[in-house]
Amino acid sequence: MNEPSVDRIHSALRIEGERFFIIDQTLLPFKVEFLEIKGSRDAAAAIQEMKVRGAPMIAVTAAQALYLEMKSAVENGTVKNTDDFLSKLKETADFLNSTRPTAVNLSNAMRQIVKDVELMARNGSGCEENDLLEKTKQASEQIKQSDIQTCRQIGELGASLIPHNARLLTHCNTGALATAGIGTAIGAFYTANNQGKDITVFAGETRPLLQGARLTAWELDSSGIRTVLFTDNMAAYIMKTEKIDLVMVGADRIAANGDTANKIGTLGLAILALHYNIPFYVCAPTTTLDAGTASGEDIIIENRHPDEVRYLRGNLITAQNIPVINPAFDVTPAGLITSIVLETGIYSRPYSFS
Amino acid sequence: MNEPSVDRIHSALRIEGERFFIIDQTLLPFKVEFLEIKGSRDAAAAIQEMKVRGAPMIAVTAAQALYLEMKSAVENGTVKNTDDFLSKLKETADFLNSTRPTAVNLSNAMRQIVKDVELMARNGSGCEENDLLEKTKQASEQIKQSDIQTCRQIGELGASLIPHNARLLTHCNTGALATAGIGTAIGAFYTANNQGKDITVFAGETRPLLQGARLTAWELDSSGIRTVLFTDNMAAYIMKTEKIDLVMVGADRIAANGDTANKIGTLGLAILALHYNIPFYVCAPTTTLDAGTASGEDIIIENRHPDEVRYLRGNLITAQNIPVINPAFDVTPAGLITSIVLETGIYSRPYSFS
Repeated sequence: MNEPSVDRIHSALRIEGERFFIIDQTLLPFKVEFLEIKGSRDAAAAIQEMKVRGAPMIAVTAAQALYLEMKSAVENGTVKNTDDFLSKLKETADFLNSTRPTAVNLSNAMRQIVKDVELMARNGSGCEENDLLEKTKQASEQIKQSDIQTCRQIGELGASLIPHNARLLTHCNTGALATAGIGTAIGAFYTANNQGKDITVFAGETRPLLQGARLTAWELDSSGIRTVLFTDNMAAYIMKTEKIDLVMVGADRIAANGDTANKIGTLGLAILALHYNIPFYVCAPTTTLDAGTASGEDIIIENRHPDEVRYLRGNLITAQNIPVINPAFDVTPAGLITSIVLETGIYSRPYSFS
Repeated sequence: MNEPSVDRIHSALRIEGERFFIIDQTLLPFKVEFLEIKGSRDAAAAIQEMKVRGAPMIAVTAAQALYLEMKSAVENGTVKNTDDFLSKLKETADFLNSTRPTAVNLSNAMRQIVKDVELMARNGSGCEENDLLEKTKQASEQIKQSDIQTCRQIGELGASLIPHNARLLTHCNTGALATAGIGTAIGAFYTANNQGKDITVFAGETRPLLQGARLTAWELDSSGIRTVLFTDNMAAYIMKTEKIDLVMVGADRIAANGDTANKIGTLGLAILALHYNIPFYVCAPTTTLDAGTASGEDIIIENRHPDEVRYLRGNLITAQNIPVINPAFDVTPAGLITSIVLETGIYSRPYSFS
C-alpha cells in the first residue's frame, strides 16, 4: 500500500521531548520559523494571530498547550490538589476555547480532555494532581494521534473520489499545515498522488490572508504535486475552461443538517460548482461535526480586523480608513455539497452522521 | 436637474492646451501623479502597463496620442503630403490598436479616426497634411467629447434602475478613472447619488491588480458615496447577507449576442447573482459593442504576466515560480445578464443592438 509519507511534507508542528513548537504560518513561505508554545497564553496568541490555523491544528495546539499549562501549574505548586487541578483545567480549557469562535474542533477537543480527566477524578479513589496531569497528557496526546490517524483515513476515502489525471480545485489550506497529519482535502490529494494518480491542483489564493498562495501552493509544490495558483475571482473562469473534475475543501464546523462553515469564499465556489455541474466535496474529521447546531443559521461567523483586508504584508492596498467587511468564514448550505468525507465514511444528502 | 459634477470627481486625464496628461493609475491611491503622453509610444507603454485603463479611457488616450504623434510628424517634416499622412496614420493606429487585445473601444476609436481622415482626403480636392492633421485633431477630440456625453447618458439610464436606499455591488473600476467622463456603472452610482438616492456601494477589491481597492473605493469614498470594500471571495456571503439590490459592472467587449467580456471575476458575480436572484446589469458605451463578433466564444482573452498574481506592490505573496494562471478578463454569457445599459437605451434578452 502506498501510504503518503508525512516526512516529505512540511509539518505544522515539532515536538522535542515535552516541548511543543509550531511553524509560524504568518511568515510562510518566506521564512520557516518555529515558535515554542509553553502554555495557554502562547497558544491563545498564536491562534488569534493565525500563526497556527486550520481547525484540526488549532485543536491539537490548544490540547498540547492545556497540558503544558497544567504541567507548569503542578510543578510550580499553584495547583496542589484534585480540586485545584480540575478548576484550573476547566478555566484554561474555557480560555483556550474562546480564542476563535467558528471552528468546533477546538471546543470538542477541550471538552474531551476535561471529560477524560474529570472521569478519572470521579472514579479514581485517592488520585492526585500528578495522576490527573498524566491523564491530561494522555488525553492531549490522544487528540494529536487521533488527528494523524483521522487524516490518513480521510485521505484514503477522499482519494477514492479522485480519478486518474484529475484536475482538482481547492480553497484555503487543508494540508499538513492545517492538521497534525497529512491534512483533510489536501490529505486526499497527497493520497491520490501516492496512488500514482496524475493530479493537477488549482489552488485559490484565499484573500485576505492568502493561505492558498502562501501555504497550499508552497506545501503542494514542495511535495511535487503540480499546482496552479489563481486569484479567487478566477474560479468561475477556471471551472468553465479548465475541465475541473471536482472541488474539494475542508470545514471548520459542520451543523447537524450538513450546512458547513469554512473559509470565506467556500460558499461562492459551491454555487459556481453547482452551476457548472462539478461535484463539490467537503473533507473533515468527525471532530468538526457539531451535532448541537441544527443548521448553518446558528453558526457564529467570526469577523476579523478590517486591516487584514486593507493591508498586505504590511503594505496598504487601498485608501486608508475605507470601510471594510471581513468575515473569516461563510456557510455553505448542505444542498450545495455533493458529499461530506469524514474518517468514518462518505456521506451524502440528506446528511445524518449518527 | 441634478447633473453629476465631474469636478468633484478625480478625473483620469488633464489637458493643458494641446498637452495631454493621464493619472498614473498604478500609483493610486497612494500617489496622484500625472504622466504626459506625447505620442504613440508613450500611450502604448501606459496602456500595456495599465497606467491608464478602462476600455473607454484607453480609447480616449490612444485617440489623443494618435493626434499628437501625427502632429509631431507633420511638424518635424517626416510627413510631407497626403499619402505620407494617411500611411503613417494607419500604421500608428494599428500600433496603438495592438496594445491590448480584449477591449474593443480602442479598435473602434482607431477605425473611426482613420475613416474620418480618409474620407476627407478622398473628398477634399487639394487638401494637405495640415488639413488632415486638423481633421485628426477633431476626430480625436470627438472620441473624448462623445465619451463624456455617453457617460452622462449611461449614468441617467443606469440610475433609473437604482432604487432609493439601494445596496449595490460592483467590480473593478468603471468610474471617472476608466473613462473621460463620470464612468459607466459608477457613472450610474454618481447620478443616483446626485438624485438624492441614499446608496451604499460594495466594491470588490478585484485581484490581481486591485482596481476595486485602489481605484473604486478611493474614487467613491473621495466623492462622498458610502463604500464598503470586500475581497472578491466574499461576494456570495455579501449577496446572501447584505440585501444587495443589484450588481452593476462595466464591459470591455460585448458580442453581437450580448455575451460580455469584462474584468476577470465578472462571470462569477453573474452566476452568484443568478443564484440569489439579484439583477445583474452591464453598463457600457455603444463603442464597446462588437457586431463583428457573434458570441463570447470568439472573444480573445488577454493573459497577463504571472508576476501580477505572485507579487503585490512589489512583495512576493507566494512561493517563487509557482505556476499561475492570469486571464485579465472572462466572458459572461448573455443569459446571465438581466439588462445591458448603453447610452442609447436599456436592452434586455434576447439582445439585439441594431
